[in-house]
Amino acid sequence: MSGRKYVHGYTEREAERLSDQGETLAGLLHDDTRYPAGSRVLEAGCGTGAQTVILARNSPDARITSVDISQISLDAASKRVKAEGITNVTFEEGDIFDLHYGPGSFDHIFLCFVLEHLAEPRGALERLRPLLREGGTITVIEGDHGSAYFHPDSTHARRAIGCLVDLQREMGGNALIGRELYPLVAGAGYRDVYVSPRMVYADASRPDLARGFTELTFTAMVEGVGDEAVNRGMMSREDWERGIRDLYRTSRSDGVFCYTFFKATGRR
Amino acid sequence: MSGRKYVHGYTEREAERLSDQGETLAGLLHDDTRYPAGSRVLEAGCGTGAQTVILARNSPDARITSVDISQISLDAASKRVKAEGITNVTFEEGDIFDLHYGPGSFDHIFLCFVLEHLAEPRGALERLRPLLREGGTITVIEGDHGSAYFHPDSTHARRAIGCLVDLQREMGGNALIGRELYPLVAGAGYRDVYVSPRMVYADASRPDLARGFTELTFTAMVEGVGDEAVNRGMMSREDWERGIRDLYRTSRSDGVFCYTFFKATGRR
Repeated sequence: MSGRKYVHGYTEREAERLSDQGETLAGLLHDDTRYPAGSRVLEAGCGTGAQTVILARNSPDARITSVDISQISLDAASKRVKAEGITNVTFEEGDIFDLHYGPGSFDHIFLCFVLEHLAEPRGALERLRPLLREGGTITVIEGDHGSAYFHPDSTHARRAIGCLVDLQREMGGNALIGRELYPLVAGAGYRDVYVSPRMVYADASRPDLARGFTELTFTAMVEGVGDEAVNRGMMSREDWERGIRDLYRTSRSDGVFCYTFFKATGRR
Repeated sequence: MSGRKYVHGYTEREAERLSDQGETLAGLLHDDTRYPAGSRVLEAGCGTGAQTVILARNSPDARITSVDISQISLDAASKRVKAEGITNVTFEEGDIFDLHYGPGSFDHIFLCFVLEHLAEPRGALERLRPLLREGGTITVIEGDHGSAYFHPDSTHARRAIGCLVDLQREMGGNALIGRELYPLVAGAGYRDVYVSPRMVYADASRPDLARGFTELTFTAMVEGVGDEAVNRGMMSREDWERGIRDLYRTSRSDGVFCYTFFKATGRR
C-alpha cells in the first residue's frame, strides 16, 4: 500500500483544517472512548495526529502506539503531540496491511477517518484482528459524505460534494463508508458489533458549530478538491464556485447543515 | 384549504401503515413531550389519530383538542382513540389556517407530520401563534425524505424516493421540510426555538427497527405512490420495482438504513 495517495493532499491548510475539525468534533466523536491505565492501544493510521492528541488526552495512562504509512504525516503528528505536552504516544511507520506486531499485542485498536481511504477496508480490519488479545476491542470512526444535506438545498452544492465522492472513489477510497460500518466490522469477524451514528446538526442557535463544522471542516474539505474537479472537467469553474458559495450559505442565520459520523465498536 | 389533497391517500392500508409507524417511532419522537395535568393542548392536524393516541397516553391528564380538515380522518381518529380507552381528547373539524379559538386558548400546540403537506407552513405557524397563551409552547415534528440513505446504495431506490418527493411538491407540500424547521419556527415569530434531530438507524443488530421502520414504514410509504409515479411516466414499472426491491434489500442482515426526523420546540 506504499505510495497510496490521500484525496485531501498533504498541504499546511489541510493540516489546519484537520486540527479545527479535531477540536470541534472531539466531544461528539471521542468522549466515550476511554482506555484504562496501562492498556496497550494501537492507533492505526494516525495521519498528522489530529485524533491522536484527543485520544491521548482522554486516556492519559494508556500506552498508545500510533502508526501511519506516511513519514511526513508522522513527523507532523509527533510535533503536534510534543507541543501538547503528551508523553504516552509512540509513533511508528507502518502499513496497516503489514504490521510487524505479534498476535495479541494490543488490548484496543482505534481507527478514525482511515478506512474511507482504503480500497480494501474489510481486509484491513481482518488483518488487524489477530493483533488484538482475545476480548480486546476495536473502535472505528468514519464520516459519510452522502449524509450531508442542508437548507437552502442546492444542486450545485450537491454536485460539488459528489465530485469529492467521485475523486475519492477513483483513488480507491469510499467517502460513503460511514453507513457501511456495521457489515464491514461484523464481516471482518469481530463480535458484539455496535454502531452509533453521531449527527452534527448546525443551525443559527449553534453558531460555533456552523462556523467550526459547516465552514471550517466540511466546506473547506470540499473546497480543497476544487482545482482538481474543475481541471478534470467534472464541473465548470463557475458551477463549482456557486456550489461552494451555496455550502457557505447554509451557515447563515436562516441556514441549516446536517452531517453524520458513525462510530463502531467490536470485540475480538 | 378545504379539498386539499394528501399525497399518501386515505386508504385502509395507509391507516395501517400510519399505525405501524406510530408504534415504532413513539419512543423516539414523543417520549420527551409530556404536558402537565389540566393543560390545554391543541393538536393541529391529527389525521387518523396515529400520533393522537401516543400524545394522549403520554399526557393522560392534559385536555387535548385534536383538529383536522378531513372528517373521514377525524372519524378514524375518534374510533382509534375510543378503542384505546382514551378519554382526554376532543375532536373538532377545522382548517389550521382558520381556527375559531380565541387568543390564548391553549397552553401548548402540537403538530406532527402536518407542515410537510402545506403549501405555506410558515403561514400556518404564524396563524397558530396567537392561539397560544404568552409563554405557551409549540412542538413540531417532521421527517425529511432527503435524509434517507442506505447500504447497499441504489440509484433506483434513490430515484423512487425522489418520485415521492416530487409528487408531494406538486401537491404543494415539501417532503424535505425536516431540515428547515429551525428557520420556519423562528421565522414565524416563536422564541427560544430548539431543534433536535432524531435519527433512525437500522442495522442487523436492530431487526425490529429494520422491520418496523425500513420495511413497514418508509418503504411501504414510498411503495404507496408507485402507480402514480409509473402512470405519470416518472419511472418505468421495471425501474420502480427494482427501486422498491432495493429498499427492502437494505433491511437484510448486511444492510443498513438511515433516516432522520426533526423535532422543534418554541415559545410564544
